[in-house]
Order: sequence, then structure tokens, then C-alpha cells
Amino acid sequence: MKLEYKSIGTIHSCFDDKFGTPRQPFLAPSSWGELQLEPWVPKESLEGLTEFTHIWLLFDFHKSSGNFFKAKVHPPRLDGKKTGLFSTRSPHRFNTIGLSCVRLDKIEERTLFLSSLDLVTGTPILDIKPYIVATDSHPKASQSWTADKPNEQLMVSFSDLAASRIQAFEQQNNKPLQALIEECLRLDPRALPYKGDTENPHPFGAQYGMNLAGHNILFEVKEDSVWVQNMEPLYRP
Amino acid sequence: MKLEYKSIGTIHSCFDDKFGTPRQPFLAPSSWGELQLEPWVPKESLEGLTEFTHIWLLFDFHKSSGNFFKAKVHPPRLDGKKTGLFSTRSPHRFNTIGLSCVRLDKIEERTLFLSSLDLVTGTPILDIKPYIVATDSHPKASQSWTADKPNEQLMVSFSDLAASRIQAFEQQNNKPLQALIEECLRLDPRALPYKGDTENPHPFGAQYGMNLAGHNILFEVKEDSVWVQNMEPLYRP
Repeated sequence: MKLEYKSIGTIHSCFDDKFGTPRQPFLAPSSWGELQLEPWVPKESLEGLTEFTHIWLLFDFHKSSGNFFKAKVHPPRLDGKKTGLFSTRSPHRFNTIGLSCVRLDKIEERTLFLSSLDLVTGTPILDIKPYIVATDSHPKASQSWTADKPNEQLMVSFSDLAASRIQAFEQQNNKPLQALIEECLRLDPRALPYKGDTENPHPFGAQYGMNLAGHNILFEVKEDSVWVQNMEPLYRP
Repeated sequence: MKLEYKSIGTIHSCFDDKFGTPRQPFLAPSSWGELQLEPWVPKESLEGLTEFTHIWLLFDFHKSSGNFFKAKVHPPRLDGKKTGLFSTRSPHRFNTIGLSCVRLDKIEERTLFLSSLDLVTGTPILDIKPYIVATDSHPKASQSWTADKPNEQLMVSFSDLAASRIQAFEQQNNKPLQALIEECLRLDPRALPYKGDTENPHPFGAQYGMNLAGHNILFEVKEDSVWVQNMEPLYRP
């Protein structure tokens, strides 16, 4: 049976691309974004929502094709081991629907201002629901493999050039960019084959770039530390 | 933008109809149901899932038309007051997608055995996701109106006839039907205009029927108590 829905709005966030975007919203509390609702969504439907600090967003993983899925996947935290698709939150699903609990900071007209999110710019939104503690919070639920290994905690440091550019950005935009970079990069966003603990380490010193807040953040990873070299404006056609 | 998905399976539960089905899964811990996956879903995609006690089901509110929505709705717990659609979990939404955290008891082949659910038989399922405590459990999130008023707690009692038929059902099916009836009926499933605390109380003694576990449960509500009179097999063409 086919089920058809429509996008009620679109995300514009600090995450310009998938690479480096945290896998879950709580990993980047300093992240920011806006949900811009479509003009046909009545403003009255948002009434009462600002009284909730946490909301669910149901969204389409628009950068994952529904045709590209496998019955078993490699979650980053399983160090290369596979598990069934449904026991993960992988974006490569039969139906490319995602679920994130994010922070709602304020609403102006049809724009919701969000933080602690994991959604890249352009993500189409299917629904907004209030987080209801009695029905959604289960602190004693079993954690299975999600409890096995803590998220990576690399040391993140900055060159003088990067630090001064970040400071300038923060003053101009009033956004916690340095904290956000630390939150994203300490998780080691590199693909599994390039991480140091596998059989094919990437040569030390290889440079990566993460697109964040309209900038390309250039960094190197050496053993358990990340060195942020520079930050350059991201030009896109 | 239109987004198209497909049903990955269907629910067969103790809830034959919408009327009386709890509004949230935690309200009826004794409820039971099965999710039967479509034959094209590979069994391997379920690997590892039984290690989770709690799972999210994303589903279509197939008994709510997406054409029948209003920007503001009357949640049962707001006693007739209206609030914006997005600050509620109402099934009458722009996109008729529901979200429930249910208990996973076991899996056999392509069938998931569930409890503590709120899904009626026939509900099409869009996705299964593991409940991840770190990202999904926020016990200190604000509760807004959901904290204002406890769920109804009517007294539920049974006629001798009803009690003996329930006992026979329990022995034959090994399911906690009496506990389930108590959980559903103590919430006062009647529509708001017929509840005693409004200006239009239904005449005392009016009889209602809730379809549950293939039976019609006949009951009356008098002030703060529910009297279960009888239980008859439900015949459907």
C-alpha cells in the first residue's frame, strides 16, 4: 500500500551537508536551525506549541535514496559490525522517514527557531508533535548496543587563524560556532575506513573539510586529537 | 513537495475500533498486538531488534482522513478548550502520521509481538526504530497542558455474567482481558459532550459498547464509575 504525504516546511540549519552532522540531536546542543513552514499551513496550528521545550520532528531523509537500502547496516558505533536495519536509526531505510527530538526556542509567524538538532539544510518536514513526558520518556528502556560504547571524545584545538575567524563569526552572528565545531569534530566524523582503530588508517595529516554555518571548516585528525586549521566562506552556486 | 512511502506491515491488535482505544500506549499496558511485516521485508532487517524492550512505531492514522483537519483541535484532556494542532498528538493532522513507543515482547519470523500499544487493527506501519535512551528520553522536558490534568480514573466493576465470560476468554487465550478492559474504560472513552462534567450530560444509564479483542464490551457510566454488563462476540462480515 502506498502512502502519500506532503512537506509542511523546510529546515535551514547550521548543517550545510551530511558530512560531520551529528547522528543524533543531543550530540550537538550548540547547533541551530529554523523550520520555515509552508505558506498554506495556518499559523493557528502552532498555538500552544511554545509551551513545550522539546518537540518531535518527523522528516524525510532527503539525501538518502529509498532505493539504496540494505537489510543490514553498519552503525558507526558498532565498529564495523552489522546489525538489522530496524535496530538502528540509519537514514538508509525502506521508508526514508527520520525522527528527532529537538529544542524549540521560539516561534515567529511561521518560523520555528530550533537548537540541539541534527537536520541538514533543505530537509523536508512531515510533522511536528509535542514531546509528552508520560508517553515518550522511558529512561529505563533497554539500550542494547547503544550503551556499549561511548561516543568518541577527541580533543579539538584551533589554529590562531581559525580561532580569530570563528570569533569574528560569533560576534557578527551571535551564534556559538566554536562550541558547535567542538561538538561536531570531537565525534570524529570521518568514515570508518579512515579512523585510526581499523586496519586501514588514513595517512596522518590528511585534511578534511566540514561545511558548517556557510563555511568550510578545514581540519586534520591525528590519533585522538583534531586540529582546526582554517575556516573559509563556502561559495555555492 | 509530495513524499511517497509504502506500508511495511500491518497491525493486528486487541483494539478492533477507534472507540475506546487509549490515546497513548502507556495508558493500556495490558494491551496486545502483532505487527505482521510484508513478505518483501527481509527478515535480516529485524536482526538485533529483540535486544530492545521499547521500539518506536511510525504509522498511518488510516481511520483519519488527511482532508479532515483543523488548525485547532480539542484534546480530550483540555475539557473542551482548543489548542493548535501541532501542540497535540491528535490523529487529525496535515500528514496523518502517528508515533508510538510500544513494548516489544518477541519476534517470530516476520511477526513482532507487542504490548502496551494504542494502535487499532489494520493500522499500516511506516517504520520501526529502536528507542534510544540518550536521544529519546527527556524526563525533564516541559509538559505544558499535558501535566495539568491527570487521566480519568473511573471505578470499573463487572456483572457476574461479564466476569464469567471474561474469565473464560482469559483461560482460552491467555490474555489479560479484564485488566485491559479496566485500563480502557477507567479513562472514560465517551465523547466529551456526554461526559458528566459538561452542560449536556448524557442521561444516566445510557449503554455504550467498545469493541475489544473480537468482542463487544457493553457498559454504562454513572458519575465516576463504569459498570460492565456483558461481553458478546463481535461478528463482522
